[in-house]
Amino acid sequence: MQRFAESAARNLAAVRERRPLIHNITNLVVMNFTANALLAAGASPVMAHAPEEVEEMVSHAAALVLNIGTLTKEGNESMILAGRKAATCRVPVIFDPVGSGATAFRTRSARRIIAETHPAVVRANPSEALSLAQASSQTRGVDSAHTVDQATAAAQTLALQLGATLAVTGPVDLVTDGHRTLRVANGHPLMGRVTGTGCAATAIIGAFLAVEPDPVAAAASALAYFGLAGETAGREATAPGSFMIRLLDALYTITPEQLETGCRITRDEV
Amino acid sequence: MQRFAESAARNLAAVRERRPLIHNITNLVVMNFTANALLAAGASPVMAHAPEEVEEMVSHAAALVLNIGTLTKEGNESMILAGRKAATCRVPVIFDPVGSGATAFRTRSARRIIAETHPAVVRANPSEALSLAQASSQTRGVDSAHTVDQATAAAQTLALQLGATLAVTGPVDLVTDGHRTLRVANGHPLMGRVTGTGCAATAIIGAFLAVEPDPVAAAASALAYFGLAGETAGREATAPGSFMIRLLDALYTITPEQLETGCRITRDEV
Amino acid sequence: MQRFAESAARNLAAVRERRPLIHNITNLVVMNFTANALLAAGASPVMAHAPEEVEEMVSHAAALVLNIGTLTKEGNESMILAGRKAATCRVPVIFDPVGSGATAFRTRSARRIIAETHPAVVRANPSEALSLAQASSQTRGVDSAHTVDQATAAAQTLALQLGATLAVTGPVDLVTDGHRTLRVANGHPLMGRVTGTGCAATAIIGAFLAVEPDPVAAAASALAYFGLAGETAGREATAPGSFMIRLLDALYTITPEQLETGCRITRDEV
Repeated sequence: MQRFAESAARNLAAVRERRPLIHNITNLVVMNFTANALLAAGASPVMAHAPEEVEEMVSHAAALVLNIGTLTKEGNESMILAGRKAATCRVPVIFDPVGSGATAFRTRSARRIIAETHPAVVRANPSEALSLAQASSQTRGVDSAHTVDQATAAAQTLALQLGATLAVTGPVDLVTDGHRTLRVANGHPLMGRVTGTGCAATAIIGAFLAVEPDPVAAAASALAYFGLAGETAGREATAPGSFMIRLLDALYTITPEQLETGCRITRDEV
Repeated sequence: MQRFAESAARNLAAVRERRPLIHNITNLVVMNFTANALLAAGASPVMAHAPEEVEEMVSHAAALVLNIGTLTKEGNESMILAGRKAATCRVPVIFDPVGSGATAFRTRSARRIIAETHPAVVRANPSEALSLAQASSQTRGVDSAHTVDQATAAAQTLALQLGATLAVTGPVDLVTDGHRTLRVANGHPLMGRVTGTGCAATAIIGAFLAVEPDPVAAAASALAYFGLAGETAGREATAPGSFMIRLLDALYTITPEQLETGCRITRDEV
Repeated sequence: MQRFAESAARNLAAVRERRPLIHNITNLVVMNFTANALLAAGASPVMAHAPEEVEEMVSHAAALVLNIGTLTKEGNESMILAGRKAATCRVPVIFDPVGSGATAFRTRSARRIIAETHPAVVRANPSEALSLAQASSQTRGVDSAHTVDQATAAAQTLALQLGATLAVTGPVDLVTDGHRTLRVANGHPLMGRVTGTGCAATAIIGAFLAVEPDPVAAAASALAYFGLAGETAGREATAPGSFMIRLLDALYTITPEQLETGCRITRDEV
């Protein structure tokens, strides 16, 4: 699908050129890696979560990334404050419901944040996505037993219900707004052995949303780019420590031309 | 001691096979490195500290890791909530009293968490261990002037008092439940130049506790494995940045067979 | 300027020899990298922010590093508690007003912390420095459009107003107490692609302040050392992931002799 490959390349070039300010309210485990991934990609990350400043900060931003990996009651309120303000400033929101389904507090928080902040994109693994769709679902941490295929119907339905694009990541990623469904086949198994790769993918989608108004294209482009960085890293490293460092390197070194060539996005037949 | 080497190898294989979910309530400095160390070892880390969810999360877990490196009053309460629930679910608890002895708040918090959560294992450096045993002790940060030898008698007595296994780490690690005392000679000096190596060792003990019911064997196995990863890293890296990355790599690449060969655990004569 | 080069070398040797305990109350993004940078340099970092312990902890420390990168109302109070106690213990304070100017909360907090804790050194980028000096200033995150040259006069004036040494970092760093103004030309462009390099530089200044009573000499020495580590890393790495690791390596491997040779500090003619 040459059209998607061209779009991905154009979006990467735009991130590098415009260096969009990405406001992150994210979890404590991945803050550093997320900021480094955004910097390597060419974006300008800022991390700020105090209720006294999130509205002002997001008003300067080109996208807002919300992530409940280490959620707290107070943190949730900051995310909602920032997300509501983002809507009034036309700043796109992307949400990562880390561990939704694992505890009632996570599932309840994830649903509330989506309802209050109207994210353009929700990036989740299959079981997290299912937990948003269903009344009850069990997640085993963030690593899930459900497959992308099982999640497709639920994702399409949920996308329509919420008016959001869902990006469900796994060996092959699924991106759908309920009408269009894309698959992104880029990636590498070692990504599952480095904490925060999913969260970094979410943040990179944020950077692409800052330059690409179509959330389906933005999410698919970003996941192809991030997955290609994983593939590049996986050619040079065979263990997770080195892989993590090579992944950051690849986010920096991959050119739009390389992304256009290496990008593996397909569209489901309707 | 061939018996310990076989046990270490068997435990590592079991972690890789079962991928136990390890619930961490740990400090802000090391969350990322701890999660990456657990992933590299083959376990499934989850970080969650909100009082609204820690009890539910720990009920899914195979071990609970508590660490006061950046303690707060609220964080302490979450650790105690989670630790009490762990007891009712028969989930083993491992506790790392980072900096106990350095401030009264740390020493008091460490003692209270031990009393309330009944950890199976306490992993500490010598001065932290001494601070738990004695009415007054001075720690110079987490790096201590006390030696493992000085701490042996205190550790044995304290282990008996608390009914916990103590793992006192240093150039040679000491593991004792008061009756049995093992020494683990694996390790590398550069581990002291990377923040969070002690905390990661604690988390790895948690992963081994998830598959090995004997806390003395679990702690010694885990410390031999972690120390051997340090030795492996130290053969490839001569400075702490590269060493840290190679350490994560080695946690992933070391096989049970290599651990059986490289493991240096001995038992004190009674 | 051979005098500054000798002073830098002497200060690095003193850090390595004395291993000063550096108490950090810093932001959530950079805690790990900051601790690793201090360890690699030879200092002993401790991170502690609970109001129950910051006064006791700082009383053991040789320098106190304050940083508002992920400020909160509660965190600000801990910084002020610790900073006031530092003054009574004659422990030098270094302050990093991350993002001051980006939101009113940051600017207000930065000014209050300076007023309450009387830092010996304030380390800022040009726009942050300008935000402290002017009634109104706009910062685009922590990455600023202002140049070091624009900031020189403001820094000198502000240094005099506050009785603090200002270290304004950029392609060429400026260090001034209002009377003496030094320039440090060490550094590498990839430092801007790794999160927390500025914050790590601040912490390294803290380590040098622990061994060098003249804040101008301490700040310039530390920035030359940190910049030289960047140059060293930049000879071995061409992308930010590898660069970050090589930077930590270089902080560990650079000798006082190499710093004396590689240090590029000059003094402005009056």
